[in-house]
Amino acid sequence: MKAYHALEQRFETLIHIDRLIALAHWDEATMMPAGAGAARAAQISTLCAIRHEMLVSAETRDLLASAALETQLDAWQQRNLLLMDRDYQNATCLPVDLVKALSEQSTLCEQAWRKARGDNDWKTFEPQLTTLFNLVKTSAEIRAERFHQQPYDVLLDQFSPGVTQAFIDPIFKQLTSILPELTNQIIDKQKSWEIIPFNCTFPIAQQRELGLIVMRHLGFDFNHGRLDTSHHPFCSGFNEDVRMTTRYDEKDFLSSLLAVCHETGHACYEQGISPTWSRQPVGQPLGMSLHESQSLIIEMPACRSFEFMEFISKEATKIFGKNPAFAPENLYHLATRVEKSFIRVDADEATYPLHVILRYELERDLFAGKITIKDLPDCWHEKMQQYLGLSTQGIDHQGVLQDVHWPSGAFGYFPAYTIGRLIAAQLFNKAVTAHPNIPRDLSEGRFTLLKDWLNKHIHAEGSRYPMNELIPLATGEALNPNYFIEYLRTRYLI
Amino acid sequence: MKAYHALEQRFETLIHIDRLIALAHWDEATMMPAGAGAARAAQISTLCAIRHEMLVSAETRDLLASAALETQLDAWQQRNLLLMDRDYQNATCLPVDLVKALSEQSTLCEQAWRKARGDNDWKTFEPQLTTLFNLVKTSAEIRAERFHQQPYDVLLDQFSPGVTQAFIDPIFKQLTSILPELTNQIIDKQKSWEIIPFNCTFPIAQQRELGLIVMRHLGFDFNHGRLDTSHHPFCSGFNEDVRMTTRYDEKDFLSSLLAVCHETGHACYEQGISPTWSRQPVGQPLGMSLHESQSLIIEMPACRSFEFMEFISKEATKIFGKNPAFAPENLYHLATRVEKSFIRVDADEATYPLHVILRYELERDLFAGKITIKDLPDCWHEKMQQYLGLSTQGIDHQGVLQDVHWPSGAFGYFPAYTIGRLIAAQLFNKAVTAHPNIPRDLSEGRFTLLKDWLNKHIHAEGSRYPMNELIPLATGEALNPNYFIEYLRTRYLI
Repeated sequence: MKAYHALEQRFETLIHIDRLIALAHWDEATMMPAGAGAARAAQISTLCAIRHEMLVSAETRDLLASAALETQLDAWQQRNLLLMDRDYQNATCLPVDLVKALSEQSTLCEQAWRKARGDNDWKTFEPQLTTLFNLVKTSAEIRAERFHQQPYDVLLDQFSPGVTQAFIDPIFKQLTSILPELTNQIIDKQKSWEIIPFNCTFPIAQQRELGLIVMRHLGFDFNHGRLDTSHHPFCSGFNEDVRMTTRYDEKDFLSSLLAVCHETGHACYEQGISPTWSRQPVGQPLGMSLHESQSLIIEMPACRSFEFMEFISKEATKIFGKNPAFAPENLYHLATRVEKSFIRVDADEATYPLHVILRYELERDLFAGKITIKDLPDCWHEKMQQYLGLSTQGIDHQGVLQDVHWPSGAFGYFPAYTIGRLIAAQLFNKAVTAHPNIPRDLSEGRFTLLKDWLNKHIHAEGSRYPMNELIPLATGEALNPNYFIEYLRTRYLI
Repeated sequence: MKAYHALEQRFETLIHIDRLIALAHWDEATMMPAGAGAARAAQISTLCAIRHEMLVSAETRDLLASAALETQLDAWQQRNLLLMDRDYQNATCLPVDLVKALSEQSTLCEQAWRKARGDNDWKTFEPQLTTLFNLVKTSAEIRAERFHQQPYDVLLDQFSPGVTQAFIDPIFKQLTSILPELTNQIIDKQKSWEIIPFNCTFPIAQQRELGLIVMRHLGFDFNHGRLDTSHHPFCSGFNEDVRMTTRYDEKDFLSSLLAVCHETGHACYEQGISPTWSRQPVGQPLGMSLHESQSLIIEMPACRSFEFMEFISKEATKIFGKNPAFAPENLYHLATRVEKSFIRVDADEATYPLHVILRYELERDLFAGKITIKDLPDCWHEKMQQYLGLSTQGIDHQGVLQDVHWPSGAFGYFPAYTIGRLIAAQLFNKAVTAHPNIPRDLSEGRFTLLKDWLNKHIHAEGSRYPMNELIPLATGEALNPNYFIEYLRTRYLI
């Protein structure tokens, strides 16, 4: 097992580099002064190039060839070796100049996007995104040829291993056939609600304090992570050092708080990874679909429940003082109100999949050559009208400019949100079946039963199994979208 | 000039890596959760090893050999090539395992020091420092053999290029022959002062606000830098992204504010580097003596002046409200009070060199084999008694445990503070001779004349000249300690 052990050393080095790249990105989004953008882009692309050269080197190739002949590897090690080989195969497709250009352009494009979104200025931003898209497309085509796949499938696989356009199309078709009508029914039913607005200002320092309390209740380990502020909430880092962020709306503490719940779901996945394997490919989270399932299971069925709002009602009163809007039922209404809106990250869980499907269909058509980057604002507008009856003409900052994903080069990412939501619904159903006290505990802010169940069945497994094996191991059956549909009907229509 | 240009590319990559290492260190001191210490040590040592291997590679060696034969290099390029060669020579002495061990042990030792200082626990810390010292000594001995120098001189040269024990000994001897007596005279003279204490609490947020105002007046560019909090104030980063820190004492805003002034002096040096050369060795600051001269010229003759205290008196009143202790003369007395004390960073400018000389003599004796790490607390105590009449027995956190330098492996650094102070005195004298309005401007918080003079004569030159050429170019004569002695007499005894 000499070659295998040498590979473990090599991939541990690569993972250290990954974590430094993640730190540089985190710093850029939370701490970095604006004028350092170009220097940071060059630093990150330098590290990406070093990582790439180390991964694609002749030494890696020879070690992989030798390790393939070694016996006595246990199941974790075998899976680890397979993932190393997949990384190597993926990386060797691409010339180092392309990797460097991709990294540099994605950093510059993300910086241009931050400005363009603020200025509602698609026109200035468009050429940057076109350049980036062409680089992503070239790299997807090169990979696709190597793996005898379609270019867009290669990108999907990058974020949701094993997920393809053929897998997604029927699931998303089922959702588009049900959700618009279901949404209308829910909106109709909610018309009778009389929601009390907050009508006050929530100081950011106090919102942060409440966020930290909730993180503690959710089991976040502050010895191995921290909370900061950024334009768009995110979670990065790794088991020993998780960096999560939120953003604050002074008129609405609930929006920031639920973002904190969401990101804490991500964070607990990272913190729950087995320390034995956390510096190896097999000890990494299993792609973004699974990652999103962990944030969404915390945010949606758990934290947006009536029971959890009983807990939040008490905590919010302690921190902000008495407010009639803090009644549990009112908070629950605020957290589960369904409406047709522009911004994906603010969308409710019934319309959210429609936002994702819109983006998925645009990506799919971009890679099929049916549309170009130039067409995006118009196509966006048309699909928003079709699915949600809304126009985004002239307000691109509430349309195509709202997300960081494309400006950072992450084409193929969006479907993970909805695949993740379907997984979350199935996992929650099984966890509650195993531990019927889970919902009642939420009203006291107790998440231990749910967190321990997720830790055992999902977090600790890392990338030990592919998704199509892990879901049946955890739940007893393959991915089944009906859990999600059934959940929506139960929560919103009964 | 093909080889030279290839070297420029290679050294730009190395400088990007240096800046990522600096970012990882900054994050560790300001942001990182405590539980991530071991992971961070491994990440930093990974980057150090990558940097080292790239620097010592056969490609670097061959390019240096070819570039040495190339003509048509201009003066900046020739100096750049010389500095590249010096880096290569320095690095090729050391086996990669030793470099990695040094980096890892210095990070671990620094973490152990943070705990030991808090706990006043030398005993637990001592073995960590012994391990680190032995690694530093081994590396100094290997380098010394290559350059036919003494090991300790090699370390001095690392922080203050060109400075040797033979250069320092007579200067420090002159200072120890004058300063103890001068200190007594000053303390005697100051006995008649009736200092009004602050007698109140200064909230950290307001202290930070005042710090930011002063940074703006000093010309700090917030588009290319930021201010944070750490245990020990420092300044890291580079021209486009300077990270400086301070620490706060709620009973004494002046202590934090003067630390801000000091670090802003460092920051303006970095921000004033020529952008053309900032990604090359010749575009880096000229060692720590020069760096300290830039922080000390701002802190000592400029910001601890009566004139600047007139400005601070007005600003402090605006932020904290009226306070009889804010009278300019009282602030000036607070900022120039001389006393014999334990902590170097809190020491006044008259006794400060004695703190440095104490450390210098201990380092010198460690490397000469006259004492060992185990002896440090006792030797520290003895020298404190000799120079300042103070005992550090049983209070090592106020003695040998107070500084980060040795725990981070920076043996040979301390003399830079006093060499830098001597340079600062000489530069300030010349700047005021050229622009007699400099002192008067300080009372309005205007630093433009001083900053522009330093920018032109020091900052923009980077490492274009060695120290023994730069000082005469800037001031018309070689380094002359009498400017400092004369300054002390004028400020404190007239």
